[in-house]
Amino acid sequence: MQKITTADQLNSFVDSYDNFLFDCDGVLWEGSNVFPNVREAMQLLRTKGKRIFFVTNNSTKSREAYLDKFKKLDIEAHLDEIFSSAFATAAYLKNVVKFPADKKVYIVGMSGISEELKAEGIRSFGGVEDDGARSIDDITDDPEVGAVVMGLDVNISYYKYCKAFTFLHNHPERLFLLTNADSTFPTHGTLFPGAGAIASPLITALERKPDAILGKPAQNMLEAILAEYSLDPSKSCMIGDRLDTDIDFGNRGGLTTLCVLTGVTREDKLLSDSNPIKATFYIDSFGDFASLSGSALPN
Amino acid sequence: MQKITTADQLNSFVDSYDNFLFDCDGVLWEGSNVFPNVREAMQLLRTKGKRIFFVTNNSTKSREAYLDKFKKLDIEAHLDEIFSSAFATAAYLKNVVKFPADKKVYIVGMSGISEELKAEGIRSFGGVEDDGARSIDDITDDPEVGAVVMGLDVNISYYKYCKAFTFLHNHPERLFLLTNADSTFPTHGTLFPGAGAIASPLITALERKPDAILGKPAQNMLEAILAEYSLDPSKSCMIGDRLDTDIDFGNRGGLTTLCVLTGVTREDKLLSDSNPIKATFYIDSFGDFASLSGSALPN
Repeated sequence: MQKITTADQLNSFVDSYDNFLFDCDGVLWEGSNVFPNVREAMQLLRTKGKRIFFVTNNSTKSREAYLDKFKKLDIEAHLDEIFSSAFATAAYLKNVVKFPADKKVYIVGMSGISEELKAEGIRSFGGVEDDGARSIDDITDDPEVGAVVMGLDVNISYYKYCKAFTFLHNHPERLFLLTNADSTFPTHGTLFPGAGAIASPLITALERKPDAILGKPAQNMLEAILAEYSLDPSKSCMIGDRLDTDIDFGNRGGLTTLCVLTGVTREDKLLSDSNPIKATFYIDSFGDFASLSGSALPN
Repeated sequence: MQKITTADQLNSFVDSYDNFLFDCDGVLWEGSNVFPNVREAMQLLRTKGKRIFFVTNNSTKSREAYLDKFKKLDIEAHLDEIFSSAFATAAYLKNVVKFPADKKVYIVGMSGISEELKAEGIRSFGGVEDDGARSIDDITDDPEVGAVVMGLDVNISYYKYCKAFTFLHNHPERLFLLTNADSTFPTHGTLFPGAGAIASPLITALERKPDAILGKPAQNMLEAILAEYSLDPSKSCMIGDRLDTDIDFGNRGGLTTLCVLTGVTREDKLLSDSNPIKATFYIDSFGDFASLSGSALPN
């Protein structure tokens, strides 16, 4: 695992790849705080003609809403560059499961999931509609439910857990999908529980694992991107902050991987002998790419 | 494992023990619905001079509030007969941990925990005070926190998970206690996720197991009861509906165990070769004890 510390190393690294796939939270920003020099670094890659993709496990926003976030944060992005776990979940239900039209999906999660399902013509309920609902006495089974999709939900409630449990308990034929399994995510200058943590009450109470987990490191999104754009994995690099999602995702797909230290992974953990997931390269921050045309890395 | 099906078997069984320890939810009642013949069955045991104890993993109510529930449901009970996981948690912090007076406990759970902690003179915060709180931006560490106690909380929220996570993350010196690990509990004619399920996001996000789990099958409550009342385990029987809590609890303590089928355990699961936890006896329902002075079991 080589640390990129000089402008020469960085220029040589960037010259070796045509395509850069980015995780977003912890790489480009944290919440609504863009990390230093990220805008300049991204623009330099575009100037050099590199293809850019954003591959995020964040299921709380649809791709459209994600694009708005890029605009608001003044980072250039295009809709066809954005791949999210909510989109991957909708695509999986449509293309792999061929989810039947007479069934519907119960969502525990935020608007990203319902919007992506709607875009694929899949009926759903729950999600933000169930924010604030409390009366577990009213929960009954619904024979139209064909799947429960769970993602990060900052309005998670006992009601939602009970409802999802009711739909899946004694119903092994119904799909149980998880948008992503991140146990934490970086926000507010700290870490908070992620979708994988928030989903664990269902897994524990049902004694059942999800039938599929769609986010990184699952290969669905990578296969879709490589096929759609005819990319050569050997000319592609995945940039991320999480070893068990981003770096594992890139490694499994045969991509070069670059770990940044602006998110959940600390340098000592990355270099620890007990860490089973190694990146090809690592660097302090993606913002360091802003020195590409210069002669020294910032600070 | 012998099934008790006749009045003769039942009389012989009851005559063999002086002390009966009861689980409540799923044995005596479900929510506020008392199972048939439970009042008569309990009264018959008292008439025969048996000692009665109620040993519940339910941490949502204090013992005082639990006594009110017995009164409301018209089942005779006395405060010194009631042992709950919330009481066990408070007793553990006071007597085993000797929780320091300059520290306080953050609670994710309902009023039972805060009331029992208060009764033992232990400072706490959170719990029902945090119901409805939403703004995770305001969460900061508090150096006075010495422990986080988690129990079933029907007002669980992302805010509470984030706050508990903040207090425990990077603080291995702070205790992480779980009132009980029941993955489900019977209510509303169905099952819903229990304390063990609701606590799992913290366990997943922290990558840390609780330092102690106080409810059944942990032996804290049983040791307290046996010592306080000088009971002979060989003359004592634990009656419960859950194999992994009630029956395991009794078995570990050297008690005879009786599994009832009115709660989470079905007869086929109980008798399955894959079930590692066997009760000494089982019976359809505790209400069947109402036939003790008669000649045949009801229905």
